[in-house]
Amino acid sequence: MTARIVMLRHGESEYNSENRFCGWHDADLSDLGIAEAKNAGKIMKEKGYCFDVAFTSVLKRAIKTLYYVQDALDLHWIPVHRHWRLNERMYGALQGLNKSETAAKHGEEQVKIWRRSYDVPPPAVETTDERWPGSDPKYEMMDKNLVPRAECLKDTVERVLPYWYDVIVPEIKRGQRVLIAAHGNSLRAMVKYLDNMTDEAIMGLNIPTGIPLVYELDKDLRPVMHYYLASEAEIKAAMDKVAAQGKAAK
Amino acid sequence: MTARIVMLRHGESEYNSENRFCGWHDADLSDLGIAEAKNAGKIMKEKGYCFDVAFTSVLKRAIKTLYYVQDALDLHWIPVHRHWRLNERMYGALQGLNKSETAAKHGEEQVKIWRRSYDVPPPAVETTDERWPGSDPKYEMMDKNLVPRAECLKDTVERVLPYWYDVIVPEIKRGQRVLIAAHGNSLRAMVKYLDNMTDEAIMGLNIPTGIPLVYELDKDLRPVMHYYLASEAEIKAAMDKVAAQGKAAK
Repeated sequence: MTARIVMLRHGESEYNSENRFCGWHDADLSDLGIAEAKNAGKIMKEKGYCFDVAFTSVLKRAIKTLYYVQDALDLHWIPVHRHWRLNERMYGALQGLNKSETAAKHGEEQVKIWRRSYDVPPPAVETTDERWPGSDPKYEMMDKNLVPRAECLKDTVERVLPYWYDVIVPEIKRGQRVLIAAHGNSLRAMVKYLDNMTDEAIMGLNIPTGIPLVYELDKDLRPVMHYYLASEAEIKAAMDKVAAQGKAAK
Repeated sequence: MTARIVMLRHGESEYNSENRFCGWHDADLSDLGIAEAKNAGKIMKEKGYCFDVAFTSVLKRAIKTLYYVQDALDLHWIPVHRHWRLNERMYGALQGLNKSETAAKHGEEQVKIWRRSYDVPPPAVETTDERWPGSDPKYEMMDKNLVPRAECLKDTVERVLPYWYDVIVPEIKRGQRVLIAAHGNSLRAMVKYLDNMTDEAIMGLNIPTGIPLVYELDKDLRPVMHYYLASEAEIKAAMDKVAAQGKAAK
């Protein structure tokens, strides 16, 4: 091993707890989500983890998760870089809908296709839709053509990887210990790349919330091994929970 | 007015509440300090303040104050830049001592000289002293000759201003709305520069904790006016409190 990075999926949000597609909607952490974030920090502290730099999205459920971890590790002072490329997948016209609303509106069959498909995006929102983030001050400096109206996982992977290559990799290469606090699908993007997973395989991978995922990398930044900082039973329970939730919402 | 910046002194720390010289010691906020920070955020929210970028020190009492403000303003996503140049004055061998300990150790007369003096530093700590921050990971990337062993206010002004000129000014000039969450003496440094205050005048200025201080600047970034976001009575009470505290510790 020459480098060790830690990825952390944010704790439960207020949308997750209602089983709604959240995407780029800036939902806050639920009380359970806060507890999950604090627990992730506690685990890393117990195991002696330390970081030199952290990356997160511009969505508060990831930023706040990171903050609770920084608080647990007494690492308030490390640089934190926020970027939209680490945001959750943009769910288009599904954002805000819960499982039964989605099925009622689009039909069970269509929902199954979206859920299983790597490259079929959900219906796009119009740029006049309040769910289109183009008029949110967070994205003011973005080329408006880049602000998504809907994303399939393939789209998410393609916009996450430039940030991985251009910003995160140089930090790892210069020896910085990196923590990434992000979302189910932006983390999937990095995991797919690192583990060279097929489109089908990544669709079957559910990253649990609030459990640190460690990747040990060789000098070419290829994975030597990866593991969660939790017991087998905790991991299984968390993955099952996410998979069940994933049937309706992310 | 062409630009408006807001400075905020962190809320009460655990050292302030014990009336100890805190300096570069990384004390946490007290419960009162947390309440002050939240209140500062609430005031700015009520008055419609918004920011594009924030600057703070590498000390958690300032970073956490900023975090509570971000939370109140729903601005978790804005870039936050942490830098040691915005740290509190480094109090040398006085760090950790309270008023009576300082007087007992150094004499009332000497304490008065230090308190009133712009350019007489307190006794320096040895680099073997645990209060010297040179072995703290926060300052690992600093040239060790730059890590202070003690600072007078003049020293603090001289190390704050390069950050003002090189990092903060360009952000203001490109139209960014700037928030600076820092410390009594690093804020004094900027106020002294902006208001072109004499060495004597700045020693008499006590910036209250947790009350946003607004500077409106013209196109050459010279102050047009400044004011606190609080009632006259609140400002006076806060300044008196700080002045009384300042007789023993900062």
